[in-house]
Amino acid sequence: MEHPPSPFAPARFPALPPVKGVRLSSCEAGVRYAGRLDLMLAEFASDTVVGGVMTKSVTAGAPVEWNRAAISDGKARALVVNAGNANVFTGKRGRDAVEKTADAVADALSCDKNDVFVCSTGTIGEYLLEDRITAKIGGLTSTLSDSAWEDAAKAIMTTDTYPKGAVRTAEIDGVTVTLVGISKGSGMIAPDMATMLAYVMTDAVLSAEVTQNLIASGADKSFNAITVDSDTSTSDTLLLFATGQAGHAPVNGIDEERIQDFKHALDDLLVDLAHQVVKDGEGAQKFIEIQVLGAESDDAARRIGLSIGNSPLVKTAIAGEDANWGRIVMAVGKAGERADRDKLAIAIGGIQITENGEPIPGYDEDPVAAHMRGRDITMTVDVGIGNGQATVWTCDLTHGYIDINADYRT
Amino acid sequence: MEHPPSPFAPARFPALPPVKGVRLSSCEAGVRYAGRLDLMLAEFASDTVVGGVMTKSVTAGAPVEWNRAAISDGKARALVVNAGNANVFTGKRGRDAVEKTADAVADALSCDKNDVFVCSTGTIGEYLLEDRITAKIGGLTSTLSDSAWEDAAKAIMTTDTYPKGAVRTAEIDGVTVTLVGISKGSGMIAPDMATMLAYVMTDAVLSAEVTQNLIASGADKSFNAITVDSDTSTSDTLLLFATGQAGHAPVNGIDEERIQDFKHALDDLLVDLAHQVVKDGEGAQKFIEIQVLGAESDDAARRIGLSIGNSPLVKTAIAGEDANWGRIVMAVGKAGERADRDKLAIAIGGIQITENGEPIPGYDEDPVAAHMRGRDITMTVDVGIGNGQATVWTCDLTHGYIDINADYRT
Repeated sequence: MEHPPSPFAPARFPALPPVKGVRLSSCEAGVRYAGRLDLMLAEFASDTVVGGVMTKSVTAGAPVEWNRAAISDGKARALVVNAGNANVFTGKRGRDAVEKTADAVADALSCDKNDVFVCSTGTIGEYLLEDRITAKIGGLTSTLSDSAWEDAAKAIMTTDTYPKGAVRTAEIDGVTVTLVGISKGSGMIAPDMATMLAYVMTDAVLSAEVTQNLIASGADKSFNAITVDSDTSTSDTLLLFATGQAGHAPVNGIDEERIQDFKHALDDLLVDLAHQVVKDGEGAQKFIEIQVLGAESDDAARRIGLSIGNSPLVKTAIAGEDANWGRIVMAVGKAGERADRDKLAIAIGGIQITENGEPIPGYDEDPVAAHMRGRDITMTVDVGIGNGQATVWTCDLTHGYIDINADYRT
Repeated sequence: MEHPPSPFAPARFPALPPVKGVRLSSCEAGVRYAGRLDLMLAEFASDTVVGGVMTKSVTAGAPVEWNRAAISDGKARALVVNAGNANVFTGKRGRDAVEKTADAVADALSCDKNDVFVCSTGTIGEYLLEDRITAKIGGLTSTLSDSAWEDAAKAIMTTDTYPKGAVRTAEIDGVTVTLVGISKGSGMIAPDMATMLAYVMTDAVLSAEVTQNLIASGADKSFNAITVDSDTSTSDTLLLFATGQAGHAPVNGIDEERIQDFKHALDDLLVDLAHQVVKDGEGAQKFIEIQVLGAESDDAARRIGLSIGNSPLVKTAIAGEDANWGRIVMAVGKAGERADRDKLAIAIGGIQITENGEPIPGYDEDPVAAHMRGRDITMTVDVGIGNGQATVWTCDLTHGYIDINADYRT
């Protein structure tokens, strides 16, 4: 299961500050992996509210079912996450495993089990041995700390090659609030949602409804705009926990002017975490930003961007450092959205290649080829229909993806 | 551009008989490739009718536009195909290249240029040097033969590793009619249509309307039920030419009892040609048949099958000979169609793995693992909703796919 680290792996995990009302701990539970952290617990202050978005898969796992019910009252007191086994397609035993885990956490923290969020990531279709988790809850509660972000980010990893975290601050009524997020990928990454778990904790004082609206809106331009392999997980979960400890007056409406700085900080944090997921996409050697302009709507632009970002022929061309823009034409053509072939304008690395449905006279491939040899690839595609636009991020499709996925279970 | 031959390549090209009213010739035109056949011409008897289906891509190439117009009156006298350059995204020059090619053929065969079908396959976005083609038309018309199928099948290849042909016969009113088809893949293979060119010639006496209905109906269960990489070409074209030379009374209705044997033969021939395309899919080492049962409709079943067949995670697992059926659960979940997770039943190689949303108690992976080590992989997925069913074919996703596509143009 050891794979080479992503070339985008940062030199070190970012320094993440405490968030008032959040304490964390992690341990080795041996759910599947041996000799590494694979279980994390977060405890939240009373009055913490939560919002979130989860996979739309019709074969979602037992933990997703549990969390969909738990989120309905907007209250949260704890989050427990294991890596190695996704507890998906495990029937009643799987549902029981979730409930027993929530019970153990609720007992240890003296809270309602319906305020405990339970996530699992890893292999599908194997029974989760929840005893390995429940046996560790007592120990985890005794080691809770307000600074254990890096271990938490490590404990939720599967084929990720580096732990992912980010921090932003924002001002609400002159009070500085903190947002800290952690996430994991790194295959089965496609909207809606990416295969991933991502948790953002903040001390801002928000209503549950505002929390839900903020995270749903932020997801669309971040985790729902990335793709690694077009596959959608049964476990995708993005949660925003707001502990309400920052001391400003509560925010009750998403349109209030006083929440805009926070909203920007959250959106920016989510894009940062989503980019980290793509940059650690299985086998990724290049990070690709696809900007689509001129579509019928923003949604149409995003679908065209994802058609390009999911195309194996585009992704292998980029892996081969080949400026094969004809495959971009192909991917626009198959997106199922309106595009004017005879106005299509494509640029790579800022260099215009086509206009009005043809290569630009005298197009010189050399500077584009030089751009293709870099780590960060950008392309802009104007489909010539309207004003819709979107940006989508993906990575290249390499031998590393095959190596990782042809031997994932063995 | 040399890649290892597919392990499914037949020992030899099948023996294909003449079809009354069809003559063929091929040559090296040097459109892009040197030292190989890359141009074919077929001449059809007067009164030949044609039906066909073409790519739905909104960035379809100039030849597809030409053929869409040419097919409207149902008449055909010739087909000319070049490999190496797809003449796509080439603007007015591309349209002119098609017309000049059709003109040259029409002059040489003394027919209407609107009865000349023109197809191109290869790289997108480069101008086609039609002079290389038109200069060869005279020579091609002087070497027309009724048995030159293998050369024709070779001349239309791009990254294909073997030429593809098939034959069937059928009875209409006691008269034996012949159907011969050739096709090429072998990347950018996804419905609607597969990236491919396929031509079927028959001496049956059919109306143009019957010909169109037969080919559209046959495509749905053959070329529209295969996928290699989920990418859809700008050039996909499937045409059925009926020369009317067999001597039976004309068939004017697709529901006539006397055409049913022909219909079955055509459907079977199309499935054969489609399978050959998948078996020569770029990098293919395994041929995968996915049967979906219990869906809301046959169309829903096909979409679920394609979701499985297009999943990079399913395809890499099969490449790794890993019976990772959890990824099939995932692919069902993301298909966007109704499925009952708690009734989902999956079998691989005829061995039942899950029932009622859980692994079967005592499931033994050994015989499934043995099946995974074979060349031909079968799976059956019952989604537990209704009576819709479909069969879809694909291949595995291997290092070979990346090798071929990361250096296609170089």
